[in-house]
Amino acid sequence: MHILITGAAGMIGRKLVVRLVAAGTLNGQPIDKLTLIDVSAPQKPQGFTGSVVASAADIADAAAARAAVAGRPDVIFHLAAVVSGEAELDFEKGVHVNLDGSRALIEAIRVTGEGYRPRLVFTSSIAVFGAPFPETIADDFHLTPLTSYGTQKAIVELLLADYTRRGFLDAIGIRLPSIVVRPGRPNKAASGFFSSIIREPLAGEEAILPVADSVLHWHASPRAAVGFLIHAAGVDREKLGPRVNLTMPGVCCTVAEQIAALRRIAGDKAAARIRREPDPLVARIVAGWPSRFDPRRALALGFQAEASFDEIIRVHIADELGGKIAS
Amino acid sequence: MHILITGAAGMIGRKLVVRLVAAGTLNGQPIDKLTLIDVSAPQKPQGFTGSVVASAADIADAAAARAAVAGRPDVIFHLAAVVSGEAELDFEKGVHVNLDGSRALIEAIRVTGEGYRPRLVFTSSIAVFGAPFPETIADDFHLTPLTSYGTQKAIVELLLADYTRRGFLDAIGIRLPSIVVRPGRPNKAASGFFSSIIREPLAGEEAILPVADSVLHWHASPRAAVGFLIHAAGVDREKLGPRVNLTMPGVCCTVAEQIAALRRIAGDKAAARIRREPDPLVARIVAGWPSRFDPRRALALGFQAEASFDEIIRVHIADELGGKIAS
Repeated sequence: MHILITGAAGMIGRKLVVRLVAAGTLNGQPIDKLTLIDVSAPQKPQGFTGSVVASAADIADAAAARAAVAGRPDVIFHLAAVVSGEAELDFEKGVHVNLDGSRALIEAIRVTGEGYRPRLVFTSSIAVFGAPFPETIADDFHLTPLTSYGTQKAIVELLLADYTRRGFLDAIGIRLPSIVVRPGRPNKAASGFFSSIIREPLAGEEAILPVADSVLHWHASPRAAVGFLIHAAGVDREKLGPRVNLTMPGVCCTVAEQIAALRRIAGDKAAARIRREPDPLVARIVAGWPSRFDPRRALALGFQAEASFDEIIRVHIADELGGKIAS
Repeated sequence: MHILITGAAGMIGRKLVVRLVAAGTLNGQPIDKLTLIDVSAPQKPQGFTGSVVASAADIADAAAARAAVAGRPDVIFHLAAVVSGEAELDFEKGVHVNLDGSRALIEAIRVTGEGYRPRLVFTSSIAVFGAPFPETIADDFHLTPLTSYGTQKAIVELLLADYTRRGFLDAIGIRLPSIVVRPGRPNKAASGFFSSIIREPLAGEEAILPVADSVLHWHASPRAAVGFLIHAAGVDREKLGPRVNLTMPGVCCTVAEQIAALRRIAGDKAAARIRREPDPLVARIVAGWPSRFDPRRALALGFQAEASFDEIIRVHIADELGGKIAS
């Protein structure tokens, strides 16, 4: 089993590599080769006995895309992307990476031909949806993204469905919820507060909450996201059918419910580290985001997220904090 | 008022030019310039006193696309497309014209900058939808095309929405129903029989019906299609909002109802010229097509189709047959 990962140096990519190396297998087959690419060369994983190629590449370059699939990987995790905020600020860069990069990759697969038809797992996003929404978003709700990032993800979803229908590849697109709790330092993403109001208090630091307690959103942990990817690699093509893009399950809760979960797990002192500082700009952006899904197809196909926001916090404490929280 | 029409030599393009020239105005302003392009040079319209540039161009070529918009047309009707059957048979040609051609055109507009923001009317198609369907398709039903043509149209819809949101242009996409009765000779499109079972009997010729009488579909006349285009050019940006792509109204009827309408208008003798010759391949393709819509947004914005299939037949007799039918 040869696996290619684009965007392997990113937060999800690194966690995916660690999980795959620890498992040693994917879809029940031993992993003997990893090809890891990103804009700068990813680190080689520790403890992996198979062969690893880790290199820097711009897959929007047709030759680089062909080189990436020249070894005919059996499974491709296509994670490489410019994030939402950057794709909005730098339109051309977002189009180059998110749209043209994805096209170059699937074109490289198509022109390989000779029956080469790898499983390709694509990380789409709930940013493919845009307000106004019904109270609960069903699997057949239309995609009307309100960001260039969401537009680019939606376009790649359409391409994957068509390439799969025509037999050029065997794709599955998974729309990730907002991933919380993201490890590391606060970033400038408008969604950053969903993580920081948990992460900072657990580390004994203050966090700023820029929106109302009543804001409702759709969450899953980084561990769940990696689980979605691995599960997606093994979903049966016949059961998936022609609608290859799926909204992933998640935990729907309000900011108030997030804070209540934090209080249950880490006490009043931790919850008191959240300072309310309303930011109308962030509030306006967040108001355009989807909040609640009914992801029946993904659930029927066996995808699993956390059952509660408490569980999402516990995953963070276990995976990032070595089980310890600040007193 | 300077108007650019891509695909100006096609059936709808030619009718649009005739209608615009007859009106002399668009959105209440006198038309003083027409730029007409297609893969082969369109004919110059008769009786037009303004300036006309009619030329052959491949708008997927970036330089050709820039040249097409260099005169800063106020309104662009972007009709150029490879049809459904051809885009399925020749994948690369479909992508080149339907996707890359559209992208090159809107990129040429974007890079013009300096506040240039024309109204662009794009002919999308109900082929953006794919089975299985609910009994009636609402405006918020998702796009899951089952052809490369439908995929390419859906992708351009997404791009138009994002380019409009960002202020690069002022687009509206209109999803045309199946256009019947198409003038001319039978073609090899799977949908051809919807027109031929009316057109040939009215001309005293035999027509073949390859599907069951119970097949339900969504129709509008060529005259209605041109009406949609002209109405779309004047739709108020604020009323349209960020969801710039609209399913057009049409007449929903079964093949049996089409034949009944033909009998009412042209008699039993005409209806008897339809020969039933089931074709499982055509039946299978047609089964994947949408049949009934609830196009509330388009109706609220003032788009109008025929009220009955009888009216669609009468439009054909008036516009194509000089009011005469074979006895």
